[in-house]
Amino acid sequence: MFYGGKGKSLGDHSLKNYKLVIQYEGTRYKGWQRQDTTEQTIQGKLEQIFSKMENRRVEVTGSGRTDAGVHALGQVANVQLMTDMSQEEIMNYVNQYLPEDIAVISITEVSERFHSRLNAKRKMYLYRVRNAEIRDVFNRRYVYVFPEKLDLQAMRRAAGYLIGTHDFQAFCTKKKMKKSTVRRIDRIEITKEDGEIRFLYEGNGFLYHMARIMTGTLLEVGTGKREPEDIQRIFELGKRENAGELVPGCGLTLVRVEYDEK
Amino acid sequence: MFYGGKGKSLGDHSLKNYKLVIQYEGTRYKGWQRQDTTEQTIQGKLEQIFSKMENRRVEVTGSGRTDAGVHALGQVANVQLMTDMSQEEIMNYVNQYLPEDIAVISITEVSERFHSRLNAKRKMYLYRVRNAEIRDVFNRRYVYVFPEKLDLQAMRRAAGYLIGTHDFQAFCTKKKMKKSTVRRIDRIEITKEDGEIRFLYEGNGFLYHMARIMTGTLLEVGTGKREPEDIQRIFELGKRENAGELVPGCGLTLVRVEYDEK
Repeated sequence: MFYGGKGKSLGDHSLKNYKLVIQYEGTRYKGWQRQDTTEQTIQGKLEQIFSKMENRRVEVTGSGRTDAGVHALGQVANVQLMTDMSQEEIMNYVNQYLPEDIAVISITEVSERFHSRLNAKRKMYLYRVRNAEIRDVFNRRYVYVFPEKLDLQAMRRAAGYLIGTHDFQAFCTKKKMKKSTVRRIDRIEITKEDGEIRFLYEGNGFLYHMARIMTGTLLEVGTGKREPEDIQRIFELGKRENAGELVPGCGLTLVRVEYDEK
Repeated sequence: MFYGGKGKSLGDHSLKNYKLVIQYEGTRYKGWQRQDTTEQTIQGKLEQIFSKMENRRVEVTGSGRTDAGVHALGQVANVQLMTDMSQEEIMNYVNQYLPEDIAVISITEVSERFHSRLNAKRKMYLYRVRNAEIRDVFNRRYVYVFPEKLDLQAMRRAAGYLIGTHDFQAFCTKKKMKKSTVRRIDRIEITKEDGEIRFLYEGNGFLYHMARIMTGTLLEVGTGKREPEDIQRIFELGKRENAGELVPGCGLTLVRVEYDEK
């Protein structure tokens, strides 16, 4: 509606490329990715504001999708703009129009070759499980409530089998695309703090639902429903039905996305 | 409606007295104190559930009121019950019916003489100021956004004048009651953390709006609008109009209420 259409194309040299770091509470959103205009999405909100600012249709490219209800402490995106505003002015403009559960926390001009998804080298996700009888009223939107007693040592042994380069097809919800399902997990830390069990995952990439299915599988090890060694068998069979349950999106936070220094 | 009326009075020896510790996010509530039935209050919610549990009208006595929008990490109340349920069973019952922004985190049988308000010896309040240009999407409900540059040292000097036993009538919103307005403030800590300035107050009691007016006054010292020494003059004059502004309730949290060990 407000795309005045000055006809600037992405190849236009007057466009500058900006890297954005974005925080959001995902509770109210259908996830990162723009859908039709009636759905609330993070990408949709950002594109709407940048398009209004530039008076043309602007696309925002994210490092990856986050699902409905998933939060971000450091989602990264890039956007090509023709504005003469300074980085700080752009940030103020965007934050002024964003709803209070989304914030752009940094904006930096980068090389025109920078692509937030294709250049991402590592991602870190945090899954928070509220593991107590009593709810935490202040963090209730950021945790999955799971009060059953959990064996931390067993979950840590199981996590050891997930680390490394594997075909994670059993740990993802199938999509139509026939892309590689091999990923490298560098680190899984499982800690207990303030009535929560926190699962921190670091790896070179995460398939659709992967962090949540890994967490669901580890929780089943934690309750004794399965053994740590089962992870090996799940990899061998490569079938989704052998892995654990998909835990809810509300417990998941995309902590950060890393890129090679240039 | 559901008060069947078994006619138990508070003097009845079959009643046991319980101390409750309660957490709540105050955002959705008109404060602690029960008002008419159309208003959402914390006390009202608790009394409704206990009354249903006991099939009679049950009153819950709080250590003090918290205003609309104010949160609690450790509000204390007491309630007299005739149930045969164990402490754990009572807690589970109540938490099951409470909305997700209120939780009873402990319940202990205490002497019949225990009164949560009259026996309270010390209270601790925390006021959180978001002191950064960019909002914090995850803590936005618990902070007052105030991005102006603040002089911490000046605010700490001013806080020094607030400590001790004083007549705090200038730091409270007048009510009709003619009770004493003398209170003792033992400690004020002002810290900077994660883009926030946090004001921690400890004292033997807090008048209506006192923590919020002290914070508003300290913020005016922080911006240079007034000098630390002004506090002395405010005490001398004893007039509300000389103290600083009342800051919003959303930044305030009742951290804990202390009692003498028995």
